[in-house]
Amino acid sequence: MTDTDWGALAQYWLDRLAACSEPGPGVTRLPFTPEHRAALGVLTELMEQAGLGVSLDAAGTLIGRLEGPAGAPALLFGSHQDSVREGGAYDGIMGVVLPVLALMKLRQQGVTLPFAVEVLAFADEEGVRFPTALMGPRALAGTFDMAALGLHDQDGISLRRAMEDFGLDPDALPGLKRDPAQALGWVEIHLEQGPVLAVAGQNIGIVTGICGIERHMVTLTGKAAHAGTVPMHLRRDALAGAAELTLVAETLARDTDGLLATVGALHVRPGVVNAVPGEVALTLEIRASDDGVREQAGAALTQAAHDIATRRDLTLQIARTYAQPATPCSPQVIERLSRAAETGNRAEVPRIASGATHDTSAMAALCSVGMIFTACRDGVSHHPDEYVPLAALNAGILTLERFLKQWQ
Amino acid sequence: MTDTDWGALAQYWLDRLAACSEPGPGVTRLPFTPEHRAALGVLTELMEQAGLGVSLDAAGTLIGRLEGPAGAPALLFGSHQDSVREGGAYDGIMGVVLPVLALMKLRQQGVTLPFAVEVLAFADEEGVRFPTALMGPRALAGTFDMAALGLHDQDGISLRRAMEDFGLDPDALPGLKRDPAQALGWVEIHLEQGPVLAVAGQNIGIVTGICGIERHMVTLTGKAAHAGTVPMHLRRDALAGAAELTLVAETLARDTDGLLATVGALHVRPGVVNAVPGEVALTLEIRASDDGVREQAGAALTQAAHDIATRRDLTLQIARTYAQPATPCSPQVIERLSRAAETGNRAEVPRIASGATHDTSAMAALCSVGMIFTACRDGVSHHPDEYVPLAALNAGILTLERFLKQWQ
Repeated sequence: MTDTDWGALAQYWLDRLAACSEPGPGVTRLPFTPEHRAALGVLTELMEQAGLGVSLDAAGTLIGRLEGPAGAPALLFGSHQDSVREGGAYDGIMGVVLPVLALMKLRQQGVTLPFAVEVLAFADEEGVRFPTALMGPRALAGTFDMAALGLHDQDGISLRRAMEDFGLDPDALPGLKRDPAQALGWVEIHLEQGPVLAVAGQNIGIVTGICGIERHMVTLTGKAAHAGTVPMHLRRDALAGAAELTLVAETLARDTDGLLATVGALHVRPGVVNAVPGEVALTLEIRASDDGVREQAGAALTQAAHDIATRRDLTLQIARTYAQPATPCSPQVIERLSRAAETGNRAEVPRIASGATHDTSAMAALCSVGMIFTACRDGVSHHPDEYVPLAALNAGILTLERFLKQWQ
Repeated sequence: MTDTDWGALAQYWLDRLAACSEPGPGVTRLPFTPEHRAALGVLTELMEQAGLGVSLDAAGTLIGRLEGPAGAPALLFGSHQDSVREGGAYDGIMGVVLPVLALMKLRQQGVTLPFAVEVLAFADEEGVRFPTALMGPRALAGTFDMAALGLHDQDGISLRRAMEDFGLDPDALPGLKRDPAQALGWVEIHLEQGPVLAVAGQNIGIVTGICGIERHMVTLTGKAAHAGTVPMHLRRDALAGAAELTLVAETLARDTDGLLATVGALHVRPGVVNAVPGEVALTLEIRASDDGVREQAGAALTQAAHDIATRRDLTLQIARTYAQPATPCSPQVIERLSRAAETGNRAEVPRIASGATHDTSAMAALCSVGMIFTACRDGVSHHPDEYVPLAALNAGILTLERFLKQWQ
């Protein structure tokens, strides 16, 4: 088989997995459902073709294992099997299929590795069905909070009940914790879910880390007023203040390397054509791969909000409602992945920060982690149009193959 | 009685009229209701005390008439009896009470006028119950559209039916049209509904005209995107574009004499914390007493919206959905009102444009019009806290009294 054939083979398996979906546009595959069960069947078939031993752990993680020398630790790969509602055919599941195909290539080449390899298909990363996520990797890292088993889906079914109905034993979750000494590292290959690689004309990039996130709830209160009777200089227009803050956030992020700032939700009261807005509530989200950069931006934008409020005679309420530190990828894993990607005469592979959270975020509590991003057409993800070009699938398999061979 | 006593007397009648209200905070008095009927009873009592002949016309307008010499034309005063829901005790109804008290003063002084005077209490200016308004003055001016009789309130009662149930004959409306030669002029005294007089420490101001209004629906469409995966320079953020337009409108209005611009409603889609906004719909309202200034501003802001959209790679939809020309007050009436207000050693009375529509807007189709604004505390109106200080009530009565005496 040529390299291109391997990309096509990946697409074949991805298409079969995409069929494991609720009816409707795109892919809808939630954890602990018949669609999940169907996907596990397809993945088991694929893993067995690659010569892997297949098992399902108590968290619903399907594990395909290539044994190494007795007692040898394992290099871990994988991603999640679940999708968002009406999502795409690549998000998550591609990160299971490609490492298995890389192992299949090695097997066909007769390569024997001096360590074990596992490919993991986690049950739930998207958090669509239950208001929690990342149970699979957290169980391996020993960071899973058993209280989450009491959370319910929208039909009133608890996570515990859903797992039991799926044939799993939730009480066995604490026993899944891995010995860090037995985990050589973790690599996840995932589509970028953004336009950077596509715009740069690159098939793959190496992830430097997963951005930290902080969120602020901001309320600016002025005075609602008749739009005809209050002159401009006597207005206390909450929306005009919010508009300033939105643009200050945008400008700061544009001018600061690696910083993202987004005003995503904004509500105006009273919100009618002939009233000066008296109150605006908005969300401000800040992401950066460097926690210092992010926190400095959070402080600067908080100060800017205070300044705007003072100048405009508005009342400001601002609260940081969420903060999650960045997860840096291991420099060693980044180096090895880059070397694997750059073998041959290819140009240097771009490095890119991940703005989104991944299973890797949780695996970082267990071992050294790394990620490969593949390009996705037009940066589209979480949508039926999600598409990873054949060339990127192939480049991903090739990089994983070399990475495995070069790992000592 | 001293001048202050007359202000207190006005407050007494306003309190009695405020009691003609649906239960709940403030005043709720909709047209053709038991509360309307009760208010007509109180107004009739007041008008009769002032020696006026009282009648109710087919539009539900209560008319208190002081006869003049045989065949003499009439000077017209008045405003509306109705309120918004949970409104105040002054909006509209004060413009009926104060001219009646001015006539009562003249009567006590034994003054005889060489013309007739009418004080009109129109049924419906706020347009709260039916999706139409200004029937009373439009009937007098001959501009009422009979098709409006088919409009329904939220209980499914048509305007025609509500009027008939109130004892009125809607088919007689066309006959209410007045002969312009018999209308010397119209003066409405109304609270400012804004903060200008209160901030200036003035009791009353003379209105130069009623602003024209235009409204634009603006939709900016970019591309919704994951707030973590799309770098700033690749975003097409509809909200950032809308924020720019909001501030451009504010700046233009601040820098242009007599111009008001308001972004009052603004809706963001998808409107979630972790998504770059893909679409924003907003309303842009522009008011000015000079139609040329308003139209120039409308064109400038439309151009600005196009420029912003082009620079940010957004799609722009913009449509002017409403336009109403300005109603200038008569220079002669303005002069006479100013002279009446300035008698004595008082400082020059401020002139002020009305940003809101009033019964005067419709009366302008019949005769020369003028308006007096009284200060209102903190600029608050359409609210239970609406309040006109005693000094302003008194200044209003005094100005009307002098205006009547000085009219030749």
